[in-house]
Amino acid sequence: MTSSSLIESVNWNEAGLIPAIAQDHLSGEVLMMAWMNAEALSCTVAEGRAVYWSRSRGKLWRKGEDSGHVQLIHDIRLDCDGDTLLLKVEQQGGIACHTGRRHCFFHALKDGEWQTVDAVIKRPEEIYGDD
Amino acid sequence: MTSSSLIESVNWNEAGLIPAIAQDHLSGEVLMMAWMNAEALSCTVAEGRAVYWSRSRGKLWRKGEDSGHVQLIHDIRLDCDGDTLLLKVEQQGGIACHTGRRHCFFHALKDGEWQTVDAVIKRPEEIYGDD
Repeated sequence: MTSSSLIESVNWNEAGLIPAIAQDHLSGEVLMMAWMNAEALSCTVAEGRAVYWSRSRGKLWRKGEDSGHVQLIHDIRLDCDGDTLLLKVEQQGGIACHTGRRHCFFHALKDGEWQTVDAVIKRPEEIYGDD
Repeated sequence: MTSSSLIESVNWNEAGLIPAIAQDHLSGEVLMMAWMNAEALSCTVAEGRAVYWSRSRGKLWRKGEDSGHVQLIHDIRLDCDGDTLLLKVEQQGGIACHTGRRHCFFHALKDGEWQTVDAVIKRPEEIYGDD
């Protein structure tokens, strides 16, 4: 299978994107979910680090380019019907979320409410500066 | 927060859906990703089992209704920007994938190719019958 069939094997959605789940390769913790287009997947493979497509900014997003919280790729999986990716990553700095938490899934459903259950490790101002 | 704000807090996409990642609550293994609409999330919470929205069939999909491979809910998380769910589940029968594997992410990227790396535990004909 060539690199182009690597891309062609993916069932891209109508916007040309696929969801990519990032999981800590050692702890198994699910860190975040973001989106990739074909270029993002190609760059991820070529560079060995997670590169997503930012839907809000409309451009490639090299995870960690501002924060230093790069995700080094250990394994890339595609699911049974080819429409979801799973990245097993080494999370540099131990922080995946822009809020300064280890992962993005910190709203837990308790007693019918979404409650914040995971601590901020580093304040966003420390990560990104005050600008 | 009331049950309705539980639903209203979710950033549903333009189709009224949200991706939901199912993770084994003990092993941390990522089992699958599927979609929910508001009714599916409400049913999941009310019934304590994963209920998805099948985009291909256009109806609610009570995971395991045919296979018996029900996903019992242990924890439901919403991510930082409210547009992805993470379900920590107890996978009945130990099989989440319709191909008869433990999980759906069995295509691994190796040497530029997607290679099948996880074994079938139970043949689909045994799970669903020959029809």
